Amino acid sequence: MDLERSPLALPFPAIPPIAGAVPRISRARYKEWDRCDLTYVEFAEGTSVAGVFTRNVCCSSEVELGREQVRLGRARALVVNAGNSNAFTGYRGREAVEQIMAQVAQHLGCEPSDVFVSSTGVIGVPLPKDKAQAGIAAALEAEPCTWEQAAETIATTDTFAKGALATAVIGGRTITLAGIVKGSGMIAPDMATMLGYIVTDAAVDAAFLQRLLSSASDDTFNCITVDSDTSTSDTVLAFATGQAGNASLASIDDPGADAFAAALQDVCRQLAHLVVRDGEGAQKFIEVRVTGAVSDESARRVGLAIANSPLVKTAIAGEDANWGRVVMAVGKAGEPADRDKLSIGFGGTWAARDGQPLADYDEAPVAAHLKGREIDIEVDLGLGDGHATVWTCDLTHGYIAINADYRS
Amino acid sequence: MDLERSPLALPFPAIPPIAGAVPRISRARYKEWDRCDLTYVEFAEGTSVAGVFTRNVCCSSEVELGREQVRLGRARALVVNAGNSNAFTGYRGREAVEQIMAQVAQHLGCEPSDVFVSSTGVIGVPLPKDKAQAGIAAALEAEPCTWEQAAETIATTDTFAKGALATAVIGGRTITLAGIVKGSGMIAPDMATMLGYIVTDAAVDAAFLQRLLSSASDDTFNCITVDSDTSTSDTVLAFATGQAGNASLASIDDPGADAFAAALQDVCRQLAHLVVRDGEGAQKFIEVRVTGAVSDESARRVGLAIANSPLVKTAIAGEDANWGRVVMAVGKAGEPADRDKLSIGFGGTWAARDGQPLADYDEAPVAAHLKGREIDIEVDLGLGDGHATVWTCDLTHGYIAINADYRS
Repeated sequence: MDLERSPLALPFPAIPPIAGAVPRISRARYKEWDRCDLTYVEFAEGTSVAGVFTRNVCCSSEVELGREQVRLGRARALVVNAGNSNAFTGYRGREAVEQIMAQVAQHLGCEPSDVFVSSTGVIGVPLPKDKAQAGIAAALEAEPCTWEQAAETIATTDTFAKGALATAVIGGRTITLAGIVKGSGMIAPDMATMLGYIVTDAAVDAAFLQRLLSSASDDTFNCITVDSDTSTSDTVLAFATGQAGNASLASIDDPGADAFAAALQDVCRQLAHLVVRDGEGAQKFIEVRVTGAVSDESARRVGLAIANSPLVKTAIAGEDANWGRVVMAVGKAGEPADRDKLSIGFGGTWAARDGQPLADYDEAPVAAHLKGREIDIEVDLGLGDGHATVWTCDLTHGYIAINADYRS
Repeated sequence: MDLERSPLALPFPAIPPIAGAVPRISRARYKEWDRCDLTYVEFAEGTSVAGVFTRNVCCSSEVELGREQVRLGRARALVVNAGNSNAFTGYRGREAVEQIMAQVAQHLGCEPSDVFVSSTGVIGVPLPKDKAQAGIAAALEAEPCTWEQAAETIATTDTFAKGALATAVIGGRTITLAGIVKGSGMIAPDMATMLGYIVTDAAVDAAFLQRLLSSASDDTFNCITVDSDTSTSDTVLAFATGQAGNASLASIDDPGADAFAAALQDVCRQLAHLVVRDGEGAQKFIEVRVTGAVSDESARRVGLAIANSPLVKTAIAGEDANWGRVVMAVGKAGEPADRDKLSIGFGGTWAARDGQPLADYDEAPVAAHLKGREIDIEVDLGLGDGHATVWTCDLTHGYIAINADYRS
């Protein structure tokens, strides 16, 4: 099935080479296709790593191993297989991952645990070892590629290559953060994966990098949803090569750590938004801002209940200012809410305040706002100071076409 | 929008008159339509009542009042308004309900709290008092109607009238239970309501009837889902007129109480299944059976995670034996599960056992099963004795058409 480029797509940023992180790609031919589907990134010695992974308990071997590996905090290489998620494949799937780790470790003269592996694609088919072995051998001999080529290679049925870029100044040195990402919840049949990779030339202590990445993910990757379905393979890894020459960051009190944390959060937010912009069938990018909740976490849950509601998402698809559906979604979230204090607005115009439709509600500006590509939903619960912002896309015929009409 | 009759529709059963429960209908014209939209049912003195209501915290005044009324256990009348849910309408909405209760109470010479009111339709528009008053006046003077006519009148954009029938023998007397229901989660734009009513000529103590109804609902109404969106007005009420002349049931140890409980559960199950069969855009009726969970409640949650997964539902719509999506849904349910003990089957054929695809898996019988209208998904978690069955429908272009293409 040929998918049209998302109308919400953004151009790939001009990511420069990142010192100490060199991407290469090859054709492992995990599926019957003639395209690069194996990405190999080699990192300089001393590269620290952090990661966040899916909470799906039926996770892949790649995720199980990756969780153990990030605890060690060191990375020398990343391998990403596209076309086969290797999830739910038992010991045979795990053997395939361990073979990849061993092959790369032998080449680099490092520990197998320094080699991170991700896979994305069909669930339930063990990754073919022979194809992986040949693909890696080819990648090791390939010329370095651009980050845009790497972003294209980790993609499955994504409709555009997704990347992000930010810089920060640490002790007078400008450091660069670049990220690539694929997927959109479950962007294609059987391709249950959002994979994100961030590389920086900054020197950052692994434990500190982990804290920053976990915190940034909470407000970015964990605040997006396309269809509420949590993949078995979701992975975001951050690699810091230390080639920029800054004094290694180990605490938020270190000079420049603030700027680095802000830049990392910026890259995570950019990548998370790009995933939503390539959501299955997405025609509109929706920001849901919840205020007045009893806590930030409560606000996030209310926001996700709205963002996951099929009826809210179809209303936006239909450009229908159907705020009653937002009321319904707030009420089903399982969080503290008081119907008679609830206010709902679209694009800066309140439709209902304090539990009642506004007598002088003018739907004209709301209708105009809903015709656009970028939709804002505002919800004030009127209870406390808790607030959160989550992002999603609309639910359209395109989603059904991708997931039901197309047979795996 | 004209909706086609669901391909999963069942014929309306031959419900006989129920002694002590007389339905009538009229035209309140809550919307611009020429059809009956107000249902009035008068109950004999001594009728007991039980009810279960939406857990949505943004519930309607009808639900708030109904919750208080069922505690008293007495009913003399039921009024159902179709075309306006009166939800999120503040004090004006509540006044409209109280006016209806007062009008009927005056006519019957009973307490206002003996008059139950439900409303279904658009959210955020106060129920017009003048239309309600005229509609009730007309209904009070109308000839009694059939239960099928009542089922048609409580409907909004349901595609077929839904009823259920069961009998039981108590102390040598045959008693009858009849039920009608409307809606399908959120079957139409802004019409966020599942309403169900069960009437029986049996004599049943109100507190006991409440226990039986709550228990039956847990295994029936609370085990169905169309789109995971919980309405602000969901209501199921059971009325027992006592006209059959049996000794009133007050405990499960009373003679015939077993049979009555089984018949009540049967009616609830029939009604719940009919709601799924009229799910928005439904083309297939899906039964998800979960076994081997750590508890029944855990099994139910896993079942609902599967039944609510857009990716599982679109796979069934596409007649695709995509068991990897079932794995994903099990894993995201937040319940105890062990990937390596998990087994998944369709229509009696296992596709994966103990965390791995079956080597000799034959997709042919599964593919044939998925082409039918009635789909079975079996999941064994391999952990304990907990089990549950939930029901849903597939997710099709029809759902998008109903909710996005149609503007409210």
